[in-house]
Amino acid sequence: MTHFASKADFLAALSELSVPDAQAIAAAAARQAQLTKPAGSLGRLEDIALFMAGWSGRERPCLDHVQGIIFAGNHGVADRGVSAYPAEVTAQMVANFQQGGAAINALARACGAHLMIVPLDLDRPTQDISQVPAMSEEECLAALSAGAGSVDPTSDLLFVGEMGIANTTSAAALCAQVFGAAGQDWAGRGTGIAEPALTRKIAVVDAALALHGPHCQDSFEALRRLGGREIAAMAGAVLAARRWRIPVLLDGFIACAALAPIAAAAPGITAHCLAAHCSAEGGHARLLAYLGLDPLLNLGMRLGEGSGAAVAVQLVRSALAAHGEMATFQEAAVAGAL
Amino acid sequence: MTHFASKADFLAALSELSVPDAQAIAAAAARQAQLTKPAGSLGRLEDIALFMAGWSGRERPCLDHVQGIIFAGNHGVADRGVSAYPAEVTAQMVANFQQGGAAINALARACGAHLMIVPLDLDRPTQDISQVPAMSEEECLAALSAGAGSVDPTSDLLFVGEMGIANTTSAAALCAQVFGAAGQDWAGRGTGIAEPALTRKIAVVDAALALHGPHCQDSFEALRRLGGREIAAMAGAVLAARRWRIPVLLDGFIACAALAPIAAAAPGITAHCLAAHCSAEGGHARLLAYLGLDPLLNLGMRLGEGSGAAVAVQLVRSALAAHGEMATFQEAAVAGAL
Repeated sequence: MTHFASKADFLAALSELSVPDAQAIAAAAARQAQLTKPAGSLGRLEDIALFMAGWSGRERPCLDHVQGIIFAGNHGVADRGVSAYPAEVTAQMVANFQQGGAAINALARACGAHLMIVPLDLDRPTQDISQVPAMSEEECLAALSAGAGSVDPTSDLLFVGEMGIANTTSAAALCAQVFGAAGQDWAGRGTGIAEPALTRKIAVVDAALALHGPHCQDSFEALRRLGGREIAAMAGAVLAARRWRIPVLLDGFIACAALAPIAAAAPGITAHCLAAHCSAEGGHARLLAYLGLDPLLNLGMRLGEGSGAAVAVQLVRSALAAHGEMATFQEAAVAGAL
Repeated sequence: MTHFASKADFLAALSELSVPDAQAIAAAAARQAQLTKPAGSLGRLEDIALFMAGWSGRERPCLDHVQGIIFAGNHGVADRGVSAYPAEVTAQMVANFQQGGAAINALARACGAHLMIVPLDLDRPTQDISQVPAMSEEECLAALSAGAGSVDPTSDLLFVGEMGIANTTSAAALCAQVFGAAGQDWAGRGTGIAEPALTRKIAVVDAALALHGPHCQDSFEALRRLGGREIAAMAGAVLAARRWRIPVLLDGFIACAALAPIAAAAPGITAHCLAAHCSAEGGHARLLAYLGLDPLLNLGMRLGEGSGAAVAVQLVRSALAAHGEMATFQEAAVAGAL
């Protein structure tokens, strides 16, 4: 499943979700009970270790190979004045990624991730979602396949991020379509827009919902009509990771919005995902609640690029270090609880 | 100020608090405004970078030398049945630290910190605070000095942690003495006690408050009467770090409680401190609010040992990597906001 040849192919993938290795989880839990600390005292670090055990199939998971993929796409709706930056910035930032000068480059180096940059037809923006569907069926399948095909099957952990001027507008439309409510409930300040751009953005989302809502019978149609290439690519990558039982750190609002249509159809899709953080973008906290994800970090970040996920990789490293390296009560000759 | 010869020495140190370098903060802020990201989009990572700039005196702070110090002490009050573990565990865990098998060893390795273990007269527990003062004046000064003397003046960042069976009882008593309310408001489950140990713990704290409250005229008396050696040592280390403008990551409830008496006398003492996390120990969130500290992490940890602080070191690393390594809009030829 690194290629989606048809919409049916994509929808079939949603009904074939792999499950974690229950035996590895049990072995990891048994190990945790013997480590020199009060039971449960490492909190979510212990949950992370069990989660990683399940998806890696190992009692002591390792993190030798972390892959980060940044997908970039351009959006026709950027012409509607919904962003604080011109559409050219998408390609300029891709060049910055490739030269190693963006936040995600520094953060990926800091967390020991191998970063892959995947620009998706930047010279062919998607169509304006307030007028027509963002993509044709072929374009959406190509983006999904590009995402799935970018995942390294040998990764111990994957994070996905994005760059695409105006893509919080698409993300807001996807969330509103899937979970209900109107543009004003999901459209946020993105890169930092003020009025009147925010009012324009809300109107664009509402127009897109009115136009496409009746035609979004399934998750593919929602992605195709309201999404974007980088958004579909993230969905494809998360699905491919599931196929290979690679755990995923989800980044912010847009990365999570890419999963919204899929999660509505197949709620189990998030089982191999951890929410890295809760973004400062207004709709993200609500979206995480709909997806049933409790974010690891809450640092007021709102950059995208996979930046929050890269920071959270460090937490996974800490969790696995404690889980894998600690001595047991017996090994250390420490008395247990009274 | 690596030695406190008298109580007056200690109290004088509280009135000579160093201040951060305003020029370095301004230079770092000017740099941030030029980096290739929307203004403010890295959230608290940007705040951390400015904080580190101020205390390091550098526009681009580095984190070459992170020191972690774990102070250990024994508490006479452990005999009152207030912990889930026997008092022998303090020395057993110190041996585990020295052999590299504890959570903090793994977490310190993961974050690149140099770990120092400082056991403080483990064969001479402090006195039972519900009966008499925990320490004599000489003992408290020795603990404060041991803490201050352990700090490496060349560190870029310091974190302090502790080990001491029954020390959440002392920490609860310190908080109640300084910020008011009774034992039941500050005594928590510590290593994981259930009834009737919790009821005993609350009664012990209330007895200690009734006995020592009238005599806690200053922060030294509160530390001496209600604290413990590792608690006083943490306070001494934080003061010494301030002397050398070394920023500090505070760990959990006990590390923060060590600052409670000082903060009541000199609220500015926390200016060079970041709260690494909010512990699952009941009183910690309230204590952080009293100290005016917003924790970086909230992972349900409650182990002590500096474990939460070691995890948060990774966030500081991420913050400084982004701040120090990113390209500016001009360097990357990226267009600014419209």
